[in-house]
Amino acid sequence: MTRTTIESATKTVTIGFDEPFCVIGERINPTGRKKLAAELELGDFSTVEKDALEQVACGAMVLDVNSGAVFTNKMADDPRYADNNFVEPMLMPELIEKVQAVVDVPLCIDSSVPGALENGLKTAKGRPLLNSVTGEEERLELVLPLVKKYNVPVVAISNDDTGISEDPDVRFAVAKKIVERAADFGIPAHDIVVDPLVMPIGAMATAGHQVFTLVRRLRDELGVNTTCGASNISFGLPHRHGINAAFLPMAITAGMTSAIMNPIRSVEMEAIRAANFLMNHDDNGADWIKFSRVLDAVAEGQSFAEASKASAAAGASRGGRRGGRRRG
Amino acid sequence: MTRTTIESATKTVTIGFDEPFCVIGERINPTGRKKLAAELELGDFSTVEKDALEQVACGAMVLDVNSGAVFTNKMADDPRYADNNFVEPMLMPELIEKVQAVVDVPLCIDSSVPGALENGLKTAKGRPLLNSVTGEEERLELVLPLVKKYNVPVVAISNDDTGISEDPDVRFAVAKKIVERAADFGIPAHDIVVDPLVMPIGAMATAGHQVFTLVRRLRDELGVNTTCGASNISFGLPHRHGINAAFLPMAITAGMTSAIMNPIRSVEMEAIRAANFLMNHDDNGADWIKFSRVLDAVAEGQSFAEASKASAAAGASRGGRRGGRRRG
Repeated sequence: MTRTTIESATKTVTIGFDEPFCVIGERINPTGRKKLAAELELGDFSTVEKDALEQVACGAMVLDVNSGAVFTNKMADDPRYADNNFVEPMLMPELIEKVQAVVDVPLCIDSSVPGALENGLKTAKGRPLLNSVTGEEERLELVLPLVKKYNVPVVAISNDDTGISEDPDVRFAVAKKIVERAADFGIPAHDIVVDPLVMPIGAMATAGHQVFTLVRRLRDELGVNTTCGASNISFGLPHRHGINAAFLPMAITAGMTSAIMNPIRSVEMEAIRAANFLMNHDDNGADWIKFSRVLDAVAEGQSFAEASKASAAAGASRGGRRGGRRRG
Repeated sequence: MTRTTIESATKTVTIGFDEPFCVIGERINPTGRKKLAAELELGDFSTVEKDALEQVACGAMVLDVNSGAVFTNKMADDPRYADNNFVEPMLMPELIEKVQAVVDVPLCIDSSVPGALENGLKTAKGRPLLNSVTGEEERLELVLPLVKKYNVPVVAISNDDTGISEDPDVRFAVAKKIVERAADFGIPAHDIVVDPLVMPIGAMATAGHQVFTLVRRLRDELGVNTTCGASNISFGLPHRHGINAAFLPMAITAGMTSAIMNPIRSVEMEAIRAANFLMNHDDNGADWIKFSRVLDAVAEGQSFAEASKASAAAGASRGGRRGGRRRG
């Protein structure tokens, strides 16, 4: 049974076919968040810390840390700040340290800059997930040695030097090539988490069905875990949370084992927790029952993040008491 | 490709692997609805008519008509009214006539009384779905001849004389036996719609996963369409609509092609419409876009039934105009 192990200093998360779906929180990412990028440029990590705490309270089991920023105000003084290759290797370790200071979940180090990936690997405690390698020759040669050197699992995105194919067979072949190339480096298949690439169904009618078929093949033929940028499926559509909330359980049924997503949205998290229960990955429905109390609080007017934080705090307190009784 | 054809006087509904999920409205059923049973005893069919119209407006493509009642007030005068075998064969044709008078969707004739099934078959226009046969010897011998005589499709429930097995392999074997026995009567597999029996996950942790595996086998090995009493999966659980709304897309991914369910609940209908889109069974997302306007109206305070009726009326009016242009 394929198991991908990710660790923080104190916690282990296993991505696997017989495990609850692994929710990787996507919010710590300055790409497309101008306000966050501007804060980071000023050395203000308060939003990062808040996002870390909220995502974990809402159910993220792993946090993605993306350093994709350039520092626009500093460019005038030093043009190197316009270059991701200059900014990200400095920024990534800072982001990771701030996040590790407030939460203890494993991290997913996310950058297109190899220097940022390596500095992230040096800074992250435990066994982070590296995000990502692709089938592009240059990326394979740059990233796989890091994966091997630091003995970490890696997200493998199924595009290559020809781009992103609309043909799922080509995307499967790219994933297969990455798995084989990794094997040449001595990296086992269970440390490759393939992202089969989710296209918007609004633009490509076959996009959903394609993912389900691909995920099943990746699982059955390559024995790998899978992940995706889940919300992409509903890009541009009205009531997109409803599409996402059906897509995630369907992908889980097909064998998808993780997603990089926004855990602050209750509709999607409800769908995932229900799917875990339905896949028999929630003993006695204990997680569902606990989550249903969060939904009760949301129905009474609390925000999902507030209700989740209150539930997490109550759980920690109860856990403490139980621990006390066991010791006593 | 397996296709089960059901017809009313004017409409054809196809249940199939490459078709939108077939929603069979469950509400016309006096079992467990004491008020409805009392109304029927008084010859009052107003609730039946209202339920028929509302379910169709909300998206039911087929209506289940269940005659499961006894007439408690009439028992004192005539003890035969305490017997389903006496009441149902009279009640079923009345129910069907009332429903056919207000809506034009195909019907699913639902009774455990063979006389009610046959009287329903005589009354229903077009090609109704018969509900149901089981693997019990007596039922096979009573119902399959009706299926053959009236050339209709039939729901096959996978229990037999030994009861409902908790072992999915046994339930598969029962379904296989029914398909084989039907073949002996000259009834093709595409006219058998298997109900693999959905148990509550609150009572049996494997119940969800079991159904997904069974549905896939029924599809791949027997080539049959499938149905289920979907809401049973969440029996006894808090926030059960959330469980149902994940279960339906998961079952659809596994290959389930219809369900007998309450279409008046927006959460489940949203999940099904999203799943249709994700399975590429909604051309250009036209149904999703239309449905999203119903969700907008619900968000503004309308009930789902009201909003659906308004949308259906607007659609009929637009359709009329389009028809006019084509003819002109």
